[in-house]
Amino acid sequence: MRLRNIKNAKEKLTEFSDLVVPIAYFKENFKTIFNNDNPIYLEIGMGKGQFILKNALKYENINFVGLELQDSVILRAARKLAPYKLNNLKLLNLDATKLREIFPDASISKIFLNFSDPWPKSRHEKRRLTSDEFLKLYKSLLVKDGIIEMKTDNRKLFEYSLIKFNEHNYKFLELNLNLHEVENPEIITTEFEDKFKLLNQTIYYAKVKI
Amino acid sequence: MRLRNIKNAKEKLTEFSDLVVPIAYFKENFKTIFNNDNPIYLEIGMGKGQFILKNALKYENINFVGLELQDSVILRAARKLAPYKLNNLKLLNLDATKLREIFPDASISKIFLNFSDPWPKSRHEKRRLTSDEFLKLYKSLLVKDGIIEMKTDNRKLFEYSLIKFNEHNYKFLELNLNLHEVENPEIITTEFEDKFKLLNQTIYYAKVKI
Repeated sequence: MRLRNIKNAKEKLTEFSDLVVPIAYFKENFKTIFNNDNPIYLEIGMGKGQFILKNALKYENINFVGLELQDSVILRAARKLAPYKLNNLKLLNLDATKLREIFPDASISKIFLNFSDPWPKSRHEKRRLTSDEFLKLYKSLLVKDGIIEMKTDNRKLFEYSLIKFNEHNYKFLELNLNLHEVENPEIITTEFEDKFKLLNQTIYYAKVKI
Repeated sequence: MRLRNIKNAKEKLTEFSDLVVPIAYFKENFKTIFNNDNPIYLEIGMGKGQFILKNALKYENINFVGLELQDSVILRAARKLAPYKLNNLKLLNLDATKLREIFPDASISKIFLNFSDPWPKSRHEKRRLTSDEFLKLYKSLLVKDGIIEMKTDNRKLFEYSLIKFNEHNYKFLELNLNLHEVENPEIITTEFEDKFKLLNQTIYYAKVKI
Protein backbone atom coordinates (compact mmCIF):
# COMPACT_ATOMS: atom_id res chain seq x y z
CA MET A 1 0.00 0.00 0.00
CA ARG A 2 1.45 3.35 -1.07
CA LEU A 3 0.52 6.29 1.11
CA ARG A 4 2.11 9.64 1.83
CA ASN A 5 4.79 9.22 4.48
CA ILE A 6 4.13 10.73 7.88
CA LYS A 7 7.13 12.48 9.42
CA ASN A 8 8.56 10.73 12.48
CA ALA A 9 5.95 8.00 12.16
CA LYS A 10 7.99 5.50 14.15
CA GLU A 11 8.24 7.92 17.06
CA LYS A 12 4.59 8.81 16.92
CA LEU A 13 3.71 5.09 17.06
CA THR A 14 4.97 4.95 20.65
CA GLU A 15 1.86 6.89 21.72
CA PHE A 16 -0.15 3.78 20.81
CA SER A 17 1.95 1.14 22.56
CA ASP A 18 -1.16 -0.55 24.04
CA LEU A 19 -2.32 -1.29 20.52
CA VAL A 20 0.88 -1.30 18.47
CA VAL A 21 2.81 -3.50 20.85
CA PRO A 22 6.62 -3.19 20.80
CA ILE A 23 8.04 -6.36 19.26
CA ALA A 24 10.26 -7.34 22.18
CA TYR A 25 7.39 -6.88 24.63
CA PHE A 26 4.98 -8.90 22.51
CA LYS A 27 7.49 -11.73 22.27
CA GLU A 28 8.30 -11.85 25.97
CA ASN A 29 4.67 -11.65 27.01
CA PHE A 30 3.20 -13.78 24.28
CA LYS A 31 1.30 -16.08 26.65
CA THR A 32 -0.36 -13.32 28.63
CA ILE A 33 -0.75 -10.52 26.16
CA PHE A 34 -4.42 -11.23 25.47
CA ASN A 35 -5.21 -12.53 28.99
CA ASN A 36 -6.98 -15.56 27.54
CA ASP A 37 -6.41 -18.67 25.43
CA ASN A 38 -8.64 -17.74 22.53
CA PRO A 39 -7.44 -18.56 19.01
CA ILE A 40 -5.16 -16.09 17.29
CA TYR A 41 -5.94 -14.85 13.77
CA LEU A 42 -3.15 -12.98 12.00
CA GLU A 43 -3.49 -10.54 9.11
CA ILE A 44 -0.22 -10.05 7.22
CA GLY A 45 -0.13 -6.62 5.60
CA MET A 46 -3.13 -5.13 7.37
CA GLY A 47 -2.80 -1.73 5.68
CA LYS A 48 -5.15 0.87 7.12
CA GLY A 49 -6.91 -1.68 9.28
CA GLN A 50 -10.55 -1.73 8.22
CA PHE A 51 -10.61 -5.49 7.76
CA ILE A 52 -9.03 -6.40 11.07
CA LEU A 53 -11.07 -3.82 12.97
CA LYS A 54 -14.36 -5.16 11.66
CA ASN A 55 -13.26 -8.69 12.42
CA ALA A 56 -12.21 -7.80 15.96
CA LEU A 57 -15.54 -6.09 16.56
CA LYS A 58 -17.52 -9.00 15.16
CA TYR A 59 -15.59 -11.90 16.72
CA GLU A 60 -14.93 -11.07 20.36
CA ASN A 61 -13.67 -14.56 21.17
CA ILE A 62 -10.86 -14.41 18.65
CA ASN A 63 -7.59 -12.56 19.24
CA PHE A 64 -6.53 -10.58 16.20
CA VAL A 65 -2.99 -9.56 15.35
CA GLY A 66 -2.32 -7.22 12.45
CA LEU A 67 1.10 -7.03 10.84
CA GLU A 68 2.18 -3.97 8.90
CA LEU A 69 5.72 -3.09 7.94
CA GLN A 70 5.31 0.50 6.83
CA ASP A 71 5.47 2.98 9.69
CA SER A 72 3.18 5.54 8.13
CA VAL A 73 0.55 2.97 7.27
CA ILE A 74 0.44 1.33 10.68
CA LEU A 75 0.34 4.78 12.29
CA ARG A 76 -2.75 5.63 10.27
CA ALA A 77 -4.29 2.33 11.32
CA ALA A 78 -3.38 2.95 14.96
CA ARG A 79 -5.04 6.37 14.96
CA LYS A 80 -8.22 4.85 13.57
CA LEU A 81 -8.29 1.70 15.72
CA ALA A 82 -7.03 2.96 19.10
CA PRO A 83 -10.28 4.69 20.12
CA TYR A 84 -12.12 1.36 20.04
CA LYS A 85 -9.93 0.08 22.92
CA LEU A 86 -10.38 -3.52 21.83
CA ASN A 87 -8.84 -6.15 24.09
CA ASN A 88 -8.73 -8.70 21.28
CA LEU A 89 -6.68 -6.62 18.85
CA LYS A 90 -2.94 -5.97 18.68
CA LEU A 91 -0.82 -4.57 15.88
CA LEU A 92 2.81 -5.29 15.11
CA ASN A 93 5.16 -3.08 13.08
CA LEU A 94 6.96 -6.11 11.68
CA ASP A 95 8.23 -7.70 8.48
CA ALA A 96 6.51 -11.05 7.78
CA THR A 97 9.90 -12.74 7.37
CA LYS A 98 10.42 -12.16 11.11
CA LEU A 99 7.28 -14.00 12.20
CA ARG A 100 9.16 -17.07 13.35
CA GLU A 101 11.11 -14.96 15.83
CA ILE A 102 7.89 -13.77 17.47
CA PHE A 103 5.34 -16.55 17.30
CA PRO A 104 5.87 -20.06 18.68
CA ASP A 105 5.16 -23.04 16.45
CA ALA A 106 1.49 -23.99 16.15
CA SER A 107 0.29 -20.78 17.78
CA ILE A 108 -1.84 -19.22 15.04
CA SER A 109 -5.23 -20.54 13.96
CA LYS A 110 -5.79 -18.48 10.85
CA ILE A 111 -3.75 -16.24 8.56
CA PHE A 112 -5.30 -13.61 6.31
CA LEU A 113 -3.48 -12.49 3.16
CA ASN A 114 -5.44 -9.57 1.76
CA PHE A 115 -4.40 -7.85 -1.47
CA SER A 116 -0.75 -8.61 -0.89
CA ASP A 117 1.87 -7.01 -3.07
CA PRO A 118 2.02 -9.18 -6.24
CA TRP A 119 5.78 -8.66 -6.83
CA PRO A 120 5.30 -9.54 -10.51
CA LYS A 121 8.98 -9.84 -11.47
CA SER A 122 10.43 -13.35 -11.11
CA ARG A 123 13.49 -12.00 -9.34
CA HIS A 124 11.15 -10.77 -6.58
CA GLU A 125 9.27 -14.06 -6.31
CA LYS A 126 10.60 -14.71 -2.82
CA ARG A 127 8.90 -11.59 -1.54
CA ARG A 128 5.43 -12.81 -2.52
CA LEU A 129 3.55 -13.85 0.60
CA THR A 130 2.72 -17.20 -1.00
CA SER A 131 6.26 -18.13 -2.06
CA ASP A 132 7.81 -21.44 -1.01
CA GLU A 133 9.50 -19.96 2.03
CA PHE A 134 6.35 -18.31 3.32
CA LEU A 135 4.20 -21.40 2.76
CA LYS A 136 6.73 -23.40 4.80
CA LEU A 137 6.74 -20.72 7.47
CA TYR A 138 2.92 -20.71 7.74
CA LYS A 139 2.89 -24.51 8.10
CA SER A 140 5.05 -24.23 11.19
CA LEU A 141 3.16 -21.26 12.67
CA LEU A 142 -0.34 -22.61 12.11
CA VAL A 143 -2.10 -25.00 14.48
CA LYS A 144 -3.32 -28.37 13.25
CA ASP A 145 -5.96 -27.76 10.58
CA GLY A 146 -4.95 -24.10 10.63
CA ILE A 147 -6.35 -22.00 7.83
CA ILE A 148 -5.19 -19.40 5.33
CA GLU A 149 -7.70 -17.08 3.69
CA MET A 150 -6.46 -15.12 0.71
CA LYS A 151 -8.09 -12.34 -1.29
CA THR A 152 -6.58 -10.51 -4.22
CA ASP A 153 -7.47 -8.60 -7.36
CA ASN A 154 -4.25 -9.75 -9.00
CA ARG A 155 -4.91 -12.68 -11.32
CA LYS A 156 -1.29 -13.70 -11.79
CA LEU A 157 -0.59 -13.63 -8.06
CA PHE A 158 -3.68 -15.75 -7.47
CA GLU A 159 -2.76 -18.32 -10.13
CA TYR A 160 0.75 -18.47 -8.67
CA SER A 161 -0.63 -18.88 -5.15
CA LEU A 162 -3.01 -21.71 -6.03
CA ILE A 163 -0.16 -23.57 -7.73
CA LYS A 164 2.03 -23.03 -4.67
CA PHE A 165 -0.65 -24.05 -2.16
CA ASN A 166 -1.18 -27.22 -4.17
CA GLU A 167 2.55 -27.91 -4.44
CA HIS A 168 2.92 -27.58 -0.66
CA ASN A 169 -0.02 -29.91 -0.07
CA TYR A 170 -2.37 -27.35 1.41
CA LYS A 171 -5.96 -28.55 1.09
CA PHE A 172 -8.41 -26.31 -0.77
CA LEU A 173 -11.55 -25.71 1.28
CA GLU A 174 -13.18 -22.94 -0.76
CA LEU A 175 -12.48 -21.06 -3.95
CA ASN A 176 -14.27 -18.12 -5.46
CA LEU A 177 -13.05 -16.63 -8.73
CA ASN A 178 -15.44 -13.68 -8.58
CA LEU A 179 -16.09 -13.03 -4.91
CA HIS A 180 -18.39 -10.05 -5.32
CA GLU A 181 -20.37 -11.19 -8.34
CA VAL A 182 -23.20 -11.68 -5.90
CA GLU A 183 -23.55 -9.16 -3.07
CA ASN A 184 -22.83 -10.83 0.26
CA PRO A 185 -23.08 -8.64 3.36
CA GLU A 186 -21.33 -11.31 5.44
CA ILE A 187 -18.01 -10.66 3.69
CA ILE A 188 -15.75 -8.32 5.63
CA THR A 189 -13.91 -6.15 3.13
CA THR A 190 -10.67 -4.19 3.11
CA GLU A 191 -10.38 -0.57 1.93
CA PHE A 192 -8.90 -1.78 -1.37
CA GLU A 193 -11.69 -4.27 -1.83
CA ASP A 194 -14.38 -1.62 -1.48
CA LYS A 195 -12.75 0.38 -4.27
CA PHE A 196 -12.42 -2.65 -6.52
CA LYS A 197 -16.04 -3.59 -5.91
CA LEU A 198 -17.15 -0.16 -7.08
CA LEU A 199 -15.06 -0.60 -10.23
CA ASN A 200 -16.52 -4.10 -10.76
CA GLN A 201 -13.04 -5.61 -10.73
CA THR A 202 -12.77 -9.32 -10.17
CA ILE A 203 -11.71 -10.32 -6.67
CA TYR A 204 -10.30 -13.81 -6.16
CA TYR A 205 -10.70 -15.71 -2.90
CA ALA A 206 -9.19 -18.93 -1.55
CA LYS A 207 -9.55 -20.70 1.76
CA VAL A 208 -7.01 -23.47 2.36
CA LYS A 209 -5.88 -25.50 5.31
CA ILE A 210 -2.53 -27.07 6.15
CA MET B 1 -23.82 -29.48 -26.50
CA ARG B 2 -27.40 -29.16 -27.70
CA LEU B 3 -27.93 -29.54 -31.42
CA ARG B 4 -30.87 -30.52 -33.54
CA ASN B 5 -31.15 -34.31 -33.68
CA ILE B 6 -30.39 -35.99 -36.97
CA LYS B 7 -32.78 -38.81 -37.89
CA ASN B 8 -31.22 -42.29 -37.77
CA ALA B 9 -27.91 -40.78 -36.72
CA LYS B 10 -26.65 -44.06 -35.26
CA GLU B 11 -27.27 -45.86 -38.52
CA LYS B 12 -25.67 -43.09 -40.55
CA LEU B 13 -22.57 -43.30 -38.37
CA THR B 14 -21.78 -46.75 -39.79
CA GLU B 15 -20.78 -45.05 -43.05
CA PHE B 16 -17.81 -43.60 -41.15
CA SER B 17 -16.58 -46.75 -39.40
CA ASP B 18 -12.94 -46.02 -40.32
CA LEU B 19 -13.16 -42.85 -38.27
CA VAL B 20 -15.95 -43.56 -35.76
CA VAL B 21 -14.68 -46.96 -34.75
CA PRO B 22 -17.24 -49.45 -33.40
CA ILE B 23 -16.58 -49.87 -29.68
CA ALA B 24 -16.08 -53.65 -29.76
CA TYR B 25 -13.65 -53.36 -32.65
CA PHE B 26 -11.66 -50.59 -30.99
CA LYS B 27 -11.38 -52.63 -27.81
CA GLU B 28 -10.30 -55.84 -29.52
CA ASN B 29 -7.78 -54.10 -31.75
CA PHE B 30 -6.54 -51.54 -29.26
CA LYS B 31 -2.86 -52.36 -29.76
CA THR B 32 -2.92 -52.16 -33.52
CA ILE B 33 -5.58 -49.61 -34.27
CA PHE B 34 -3.11 -46.78 -34.86
CA ASN B 35 -0.34 -49.00 -36.28
CA ASN B 36 2.21 -47.31 -34.01
CA ASP B 37 3.12 -46.76 -30.36
CA ASN B 38 2.67 -43.01 -30.27
CA PRO B 39 1.06 -41.46 -27.18
CA ILE B 40 -2.72 -41.33 -27.03
CA TYR B 41 -4.50 -38.06 -26.22
CA LEU B 42 -8.20 -38.33 -25.40
CA GLU B 43 -10.82 -35.60 -25.62
CA ILE B 44 -13.90 -36.37 -23.57
CA GLY B 45 -16.94 -34.66 -25.04
CA MET B 46 -15.41 -33.61 -28.33
CA GLY B 47 -18.58 -32.00 -29.67
CA LYS B 48 -18.34 -30.97 -33.30
CA GLY B 49 -14.65 -31.78 -33.43
CA GLN B 50 -12.83 -28.57 -34.29
CA PHE B 51 -10.40 -28.89 -31.36
CA ILE B 52 -9.41 -32.50 -31.96
CA LEU B 53 -9.16 -32.00 -35.72
CA LYS B 54 -6.76 -29.08 -35.36
CA ASN B 55 -4.72 -31.02 -32.83
CA ALA B 56 -4.54 -34.10 -35.04
CA LEU B 57 -3.42 -31.96 -37.98
CA LYS B 58 -0.79 -30.17 -35.92
CA TYR B 59 0.61 -33.11 -33.96
CA GLU B 60 1.12 -36.00 -36.36
CA ASN B 61 3.04 -38.07 -33.83
CA ILE B 62 0.20 -38.15 -31.34
CA ASN B 63 -2.82 -40.42 -31.65
CA PHE B 64 -6.05 -38.61 -30.87
CA VAL B 65 -9.26 -40.20 -29.67
CA GLY B 66 -12.43 -38.16 -29.41
CA LEU B 67 -15.31 -39.29 -27.23
CA GLU B 68 -18.83 -38.08 -27.86
CA LEU B 69 -21.98 -39.62 -26.50
CA GLN B 70 -24.62 -37.89 -28.60
CA ASP B 71 -25.23 -39.62 -31.93
CA SER B 72 -26.20 -36.47 -33.80
CA VAL B 73 -23.20 -34.55 -32.56
CA ILE B 74 -20.62 -37.20 -33.38
CA LEU B 75 -22.25 -37.67 -36.80
CA ARG B 76 -21.75 -33.98 -37.54
CA ALA B 77 -18.14 -34.28 -36.41
CA ALA B 78 -17.63 -37.39 -38.55
CA ARG B 79 -18.97 -35.65 -41.64
CA LYS B 80 -16.53 -32.78 -41.07
CA LEU B 81 -13.48 -34.85 -40.09
CA ALA B 82 -13.73 -37.89 -42.42
CA PRO B 83 -12.50 -36.11 -45.57
CA TYR B 84 -9.15 -35.42 -43.87
CA LYS B 85 -8.46 -39.18 -43.73
CA LEU B 86 -6.18 -38.75 -40.72
CA ASN B 87 -4.43 -41.90 -39.50
CA ASN B 88 -3.91 -40.42 -36.03
CA LEU B 89 -7.55 -39.68 -35.28
CA LYS B 90 -10.35 -41.96 -34.13
CA LEU B 91 -13.75 -41.14 -32.65
CA LEU B 92 -15.80 -43.18 -30.21
CA ASN B 93 -19.54 -42.92 -29.67
CA LEU B 94 -19.18 -43.69 -25.98
CA ASP B 95 -20.16 -42.56 -22.49
CA ALA B 96 -17.12 -41.51 -20.41
CA THR B 97 -18.20 -43.81 -17.58
CA LYS B 98 -17.42 -46.73 -19.93
CA LEU B 99 -13.80 -45.72 -20.53
CA ARG B 100 -12.40 -48.39 -18.24
CA GLU B 101 -14.03 -51.09 -20.37
CA ILE B 102 -12.20 -49.86 -23.45
CA PHE B 103 -8.81 -48.53 -22.42
CA PRO B 104 -6.19 -50.52 -20.49
CA ASP B 105 -4.63 -48.99 -17.38
CA ALA B 106 -1.89 -46.45 -18.04
CA SER B 107 -2.66 -46.24 -21.74
CA ILE B 108 -3.53 -42.54 -22.17
CA SER B 109 -0.98 -39.71 -22.00
CA LYS B 110 -3.31 -36.75 -21.89
CA ILE B 111 -7.01 -36.08 -21.35
CA PHE B 112 -8.75 -32.93 -22.58
CA LEU B 113 -11.90 -31.72 -20.84
CA ASN B 114 -13.24 -28.85 -22.91
CA PHE B 115 -16.35 -26.95 -21.88
CA SER B 116 -17.85 -29.96 -20.17
CA ASP B 117 -21.43 -29.88 -18.99
CA PRO B 118 -21.34 -28.12 -15.57
CA TRP B 119 -24.20 -30.16 -14.07
CA PRO B 120 -24.82 -27.37 -11.54
CA LYS B 121 -27.27 -29.24 -9.28
CA SER B 122 -25.63 -31.12 -6.39
CA ARG B 123 -27.71 -34.20 -7.11
CA HIS B 124 -25.97 -34.35 -10.52
CA GLU B 125 -22.49 -33.88 -9.09
CA LYS B 126 -21.45 -37.39 -10.09
CA ARG B 127 -22.00 -36.58 -13.73
CA ARG B 128 -19.45 -33.75 -13.72
CA LEU B 129 -16.33 -34.91 -15.53
CA THR B 130 -14.19 -33.82 -12.57
CA SER B 131 -16.17 -35.61 -9.85
CA ASP B 132 -14.45 -38.02 -7.46
CA GLU B 133 -15.25 -41.07 -9.56
CA PHE B 134 -13.92 -39.55 -12.77
CA LEU B 135 -10.74 -38.28 -11.14
CA LYS B 136 -10.09 -41.80 -9.82
CA LEU B 137 -10.83 -43.23 -13.26
CA TYR B 138 -8.40 -40.83 -14.98
CA LYS B 139 -5.66 -41.78 -12.51
CA SER B 140 -5.90 -45.38 -13.59
CA LEU B 141 -6.16 -44.61 -17.32
CA LEU B 142 -3.33 -42.09 -17.47
CA VAL B 143 0.31 -43.03 -17.83
CA LYS B 144 2.86 -41.94 -15.20
CA ASP B 145 2.97 -38.14 -15.22
CA GLY B 146 -0.11 -38.19 -17.44
CA ILE B 147 -1.80 -34.85 -17.90
CA ILE B 148 -5.30 -33.38 -17.86
CA GLU B 149 -6.00 -30.09 -19.59
CA MET B 150 -9.30 -28.45 -18.78
CA LYS B 151 -10.99 -25.40 -20.27
CA THR B 152 -14.35 -24.00 -19.30
CA ASP B 153 -16.35 -20.81 -19.22
CA ASN B 154 -18.21 -22.03 -16.14
CA ARG B 155 -16.77 -20.46 -13.00
CA LYS B 156 -18.48 -22.77 -10.52
CA LEU B 157 -17.44 -25.89 -12.41
CA PHE B 158 -13.88 -24.61 -12.52
CA GLU B 159 -13.81 -23.82 -8.78
CA TYR B 160 -15.24 -27.26 -8.08
CA SER B 161 -12.70 -28.91 -10.36
CA LEU B 162 -9.67 -27.18 -8.81
CA ILE B 163 -10.85 -28.25 -5.36
CA LYS B 164 -11.31 -31.82 -6.59
CA PHE B 165 -7.95 -31.97 -8.41
CA ASN B 166 -6.31 -30.76 -5.20
CA GLU B 167 -8.24 -33.22 -3.05
CA HIS B 168 -7.15 -36.11 -5.28
CA ASN B 169 -3.51 -34.97 -5.16
CA TYR B 170 -3.21 -33.96 -8.78
CA LYS B 171 -0.33 -31.52 -9.22
CA PHE B 172 -1.10 -28.13 -10.75
CA LEU B 173 1.24 -27.35 -13.63
CA GLU B 174 -0.46 -24.29 -15.10
CA LEU B 175 -3.47 -22.13 -14.33
CA ASN B 176 -4.97 -19.30 -16.29
CA LEU B 177 -8.05 -17.53 -14.99
CA ASN B 178 -8.53 -15.48 -18.15
CA LEU B 179 -7.08 -17.53 -20.97
CA HIS B 180 -7.86 -15.16 -23.80
CA GLU B 181 -7.10 -11.85 -22.09
CA VAL B 182 -4.02 -11.80 -24.27
CA GLU B 183 -4.39 -13.11 -27.84
CA ASN B 184 -2.34 -16.29 -28.24
CA PRO B 185 -2.43 -17.92 -31.70
CA GLU B 186 -0.85 -21.08 -30.25
CA ILE B 187 -4.02 -21.95 -28.37
CA ILE B 188 -6.22 -24.43 -30.23
CA THR B 189 -9.83 -23.49 -29.58
CA THR B 190 -13.15 -25.30 -29.63
CA GLU B 191 -16.24 -24.00 -31.44
CA PHE B 192 -17.68 -22.87 -28.07
CA GLU B 193 -14.47 -21.11 -27.18
CA ASP B 194 -14.47 -19.04 -30.37
CA LYS B 195 -17.98 -17.80 -29.54
CA PHE B 196 -17.02 -16.98 -25.95
CA LYS B 197 -13.92 -15.11 -27.10
CA LEU B 198 -16.04 -12.90 -29.34
CA LEU B 199 -18.29 -12.16 -26.36
CA ASN B 200 -15.25 -11.41 -24.17
CA GLN B 201 -16.35 -14.07 -21.71
CA THR B 202 -13.76 -15.33 -19.25
CA ILE B 203 -12.31 -18.74 -20.11
CA TYR B 204 -10.61 -20.70 -17.34
CA TYR B 205 -7.75 -23.11 -18.02
CA ALA B 206 -5.96 -25.68 -15.87
CA LYS B 207 -3.19 -28.13 -16.66
CA VAL B 208 -2.63 -30.77 -14.00
CA LYS B 209 -0.75 -34.04 -13.77
CA ILE B 210 -1.38 -37.18 -11.79
